[in-house]
Amino acid sequence: MSHLTDIEIARNAKKRPIAEIGERLGIEEAALVPFGHDKAKVSADFIESVADRPNGKLILVTAINPTPAGEGKTTTTVGLGDGLNAIGKKAAICIREASLGPCFGMKGGAAGGGYAQVVPMEEMNLHFTGDFHAITSAHNLLSAMIDNHIYWGNDLEIDERRVVWRRVMDMNDRALRDTVTSLGGVANGFPRQTGFDITVASEVMAILCLATDLADLQKRLGDIIVAYRRDRSPIYARDIKADGAMTVLLQQAMQPNLVQTLENNPAFVHGGPFANIAHGCNSVIATTTALKLADYVVTEAGFGADLGAEKFMNIKCRKAGIAPDVVVLVATVRAMKMNGGVAKQDLGEENVSAVEAGCPNLGRHIENVKSFGVPVVVAINHFSGDTEAEVDAVKAYVEAQGSEAILCKHWEKGSAGVTDLASRVAELADSGAAQFAPLYPDEMSLFDKIDTIAKRIYRADEVLADKKIRDQLRQWEEDGYGNLPICMAKTQYSFSTDPSLRGAPTGHGVPIREVRLSAGAGFVVAICGEIMTMPGLPRIPSAEQIGLNESGEIEGLF
Amino acid sequence: MSHLTDIEIARNAKKRPIAEIGERLGIEEAALVPFGHDKAKVSADFIESVADRPNGKLILVTAINPTPAGEGKTTTTVGLGDGLNAIGKKAAICIREASLGPCFGMKGGAAGGGYAQVVPMEEMNLHFTGDFHAITSAHNLLSAMIDNHIYWGNDLEIDERRVVWRRVMDMNDRALRDTVTSLGGVANGFPRQTGFDITVASEVMAILCLATDLADLQKRLGDIIVAYRRDRSPIYARDIKADGAMTVLLQQAMQPNLVQTLENNPAFVHGGPFANIAHGCNSVIATTTALKLADYVVTEAGFGADLGAEKFMNIKCRKAGIAPDVVVLVATVRAMKMNGGVAKQDLGEENVSAVEAGCPNLGRHIENVKSFGVPVVVAINHFSGDTEAEVDAVKAYVEAQGSEAILCKHWEKGSAGVTDLASRVAELADSGAAQFAPLYPDEMSLFDKIDTIAKRIYRADEVLADKKIRDQLRQWEEDGYGNLPICMAKTQYSFSTDPSLRGAPTGHGVPIREVRLSAGAGFVVAICGEIMTMPGLPRIPSAEQIGLNESGEIEGLF
Repeated sequence: MSHLTDIEIARNAKKRPIAEIGERLGIEEAALVPFGHDKAKVSADFIESVADRPNGKLILVTAINPTPAGEGKTTTTVGLGDGLNAIGKKAAICIREASLGPCFGMKGGAAGGGYAQVVPMEEMNLHFTGDFHAITSAHNLLSAMIDNHIYWGNDLEIDERRVVWRRVMDMNDRALRDTVTSLGGVANGFPRQTGFDITVASEVMAILCLATDLADLQKRLGDIIVAYRRDRSPIYARDIKADGAMTVLLQQAMQPNLVQTLENNPAFVHGGPFANIAHGCNSVIATTTALKLADYVVTEAGFGADLGAEKFMNIKCRKAGIAPDVVVLVATVRAMKMNGGVAKQDLGEENVSAVEAGCPNLGRHIENVKSFGVPVVVAINHFSGDTEAEVDAVKAYVEAQGSEAILCKHWEKGSAGVTDLASRVAELADSGAAQFAPLYPDEMSLFDKIDTIAKRIYRADEVLADKKIRDQLRQWEEDGYGNLPICMAKTQYSFSTDPSLRGAPTGHGVPIREVRLSAGAGFVVAICGEIMTMPGLPRIPSAEQIGLNESGEIEGLF
Repeated sequence: MSHLTDIEIARNAKKRPIAEIGERLGIEEAALVPFGHDKAKVSADFIESVADRPNGKLILVTAINPTPAGEGKTTTTVGLGDGLNAIGKKAAICIREASLGPCFGMKGGAAGGGYAQVVPMEEMNLHFTGDFHAITSAHNLLSAMIDNHIYWGNDLEIDERRVVWRRVMDMNDRALRDTVTSLGGVANGFPRQTGFDITVASEVMAILCLATDLADLQKRLGDIIVAYRRDRSPIYARDIKADGAMTVLLQQAMQPNLVQTLENNPAFVHGGPFANIAHGCNSVIATTTALKLADYVVTEAGFGADLGAEKFMNIKCRKAGIAPDVVVLVATVRAMKMNGGVAKQDLGEENVSAVEAGCPNLGRHIENVKSFGVPVVVAINHFSGDTEAEVDAVKAYVEAQGSEAILCKHWEKGSAGVTDLASRVAELADSGAAQFAPLYPDEMSLFDKIDTIAKRIYRADEVLADKKIRDQLRQWEEDGYGNLPICMAKTQYSFSTDPSLRGAPTGHGVPIREVRLSAGAGFVVAICGEIMTMPGLPRIPSAEQIGLNESGEIEGLF
């Protein structure tokens, strides 16, 4: 097995010119907008030109509830894409872009790991093709135009206390969470309390990832609620006349980015909304474009299946009119052991009974995903210390649930380690077995949608929401927002709202602390617990170690 | 003559692939980092590989004090570059990048005008190759690390009241000028009053534009003074350990951008520091690279010659070890008339005596530039309403000063309108007549440097600076900064500090309101009057009209 680090493997990659990768998908060179020699955007004209083609098969990779052991969801997404190509299928993967800010706090997240990675790794963790910077600019232009409107006379009668649109920065900067702006006198406007979120938490990010084209993008941007009047009537970005300029700032960012895996297979990396207050999936336009160009598209959703897959199904698929043909649920022996009560430092020791004790978390995710009418395969992402007995325990458990689990060694071996999974996934996708249906209909009331998710996915006994929250939901229904799906913001570590409650808990309540309307993105956010939308830096931020070495290579980022 | 607008002309441009433009300068395709098909960065390795080549001739385009009539300095820079190529010379131009934020306030500044433009115009006024976004990120990472250092115990003993490093955003947003951050309790840090400047005002921008390579960039970033202790001792970015990560964020931005003129001649567009609190020139690395690749390099400096050319000579040339071979001073009949007292609405009428009355402003700039030991040619940038008698009046005046003025029609005719100027400029550059020397030696005291600029360039009688300012300058001399050049921040509309005082005033005093040390950029800023470092949006910002039309073209930006 490999003794190289992820970054060493990535640097050794024999990348092909991006035009060659595009050619594999039938994209002529003129339809690619290159960013360096190894990244390109796919032009809007080209995307429009393939709109009438039939779709390939859609494969969602999701996972159990994350544990500190690491599950390898992106690694498996990349490995499976390579595996499908290795068995002769025309496959592409679709994953999210990384946020720049957090890379300067903790070490940066690579796109995959081992021999299942997307490259160029450094650039993907830094400015990449500038999409997030464009989102930051578009978001903050709207912010500036709101304050400017108030400054010049406030014709729209914005209640300055009820401006809900904040500013964003792609940086971990706790000092910006809560600020007072417009100090310093008349020339600087009317002081008010506001703050910054990190760019990935911007509704503009969620909108870009759900918009089907530029016209839809502009419509959604116009629909953003930025403030309220004293009579509580909403003011939209359209009223501020910011939607056109925001669209111009995002025109290029709307084009999906094409890069490649270590095995030179096509990878779309586009968009990266938060998986709590937003839906946590790569862009609709990347996924739908990939479906026109490849026979199999492997994509992933944020966090575990309770959040990521649920939102993928109920928000992304519903909005985009797409449906998964098969779902791959990633699990690891180590994560099963942690769910079974083993501490992180003891994960190296064989412990079959702990594996067995941890399996119910996996079992519930299998059940949940099946309830959407989609076949499920469990991918056991192999770690070097896993014993055969432990792997067999997971397999046996999954089989007892009427599903199947396949051991994968893509981290160690690339596509050669994942052909079994690839073959089975292709077979299931081709079988037409999937009968996808979202969990709830558009017409269901907002509260009932929350209740349905809580009871059917989280297996809670009840949803706890006070009168104010129920009234707010009813008000939105009266205002015409009742048909929106729900975006749950909950801890990713448990089915419940208590992060320490591992396994497959029952009997819990789901308290709704707050609800928010993302009218542009088109969902209602139900917040259960503390949600951090602007991270801070740790005591010793990784930025302190980041620098260029004598060869001009980046050190300390990974 | 043309009836097309600048943007229409730009859209009709027959652009050549950027690789072809690079080839004209001997840059192989692999040494270009493409951004789309019409923009590229020149790789650091390639730049290093040509370091030992001899330099071409350097031509600085500067102007009289700007008037509302418009002088066309960039248009003339572009036209002259095309003109030199048209007469068979291998020439490149070097200009600044545009700031994104102001384009959403007033209509965006094109790069040149008429038939003397650089393209692609839209992208150059929006995200371009992401350089300014990278500068914003690097600046704000340092800001976040300062507050984070204080948050985690403040080992460096930063006096929170004396943090001088603010944040930046590339946006016109007056609400951010003066803010209180870190509100909201213990988890958000220690509240303090600070604010945002626009990105072009960042010292990081000035540093990027003066750094000779990545090692020099990192050294200068480390030299930035971010705060002081209670004992007034400075704290550097290096102490915060931010310089390495900032360099990583700026690695790509340090590579100069190559685009083309309407006539497919090479144009480097790189960097764009403020011309008041910074030096207002494109990057040193772009200029020095262009000098290795072209026989003639035409570049420009911000504002009029009293600010732009003075800083070009005393800051940029001194730091970069380069020297202009000839200076082109741009003037227009209309601007002479305004200097001669004609109101803007009356500029259409012939008025030879007003032209003559306005010429002394031009005359003094000629004298000043000559005092640097460099030959001067005046370019009369032709406007359609100019009469022959008016043009002759300018020519006669300039000849009486012992110089020459050449009428140029590049706006209307492209290179065909500027061959006379191009021939004369090439002749002067080749003559070796230039004997460049900066205005003052490094060893002169900081106050005497200010005094020298004020008396020799502005023709002031005296510099007014109170004891506190003189003490501060002396303190910096003791601290080892006495050898730095001065960066004057003064109104661009007059030789004096009174913007309404046109022509060639004498007898005025230059009051120094404040001095600032830009230790990373390597200059001392002397501020004479109000300097706005974060613009606001107007009552009806141009953003309201900006949008995509049905063809996906950007409307309202120009």
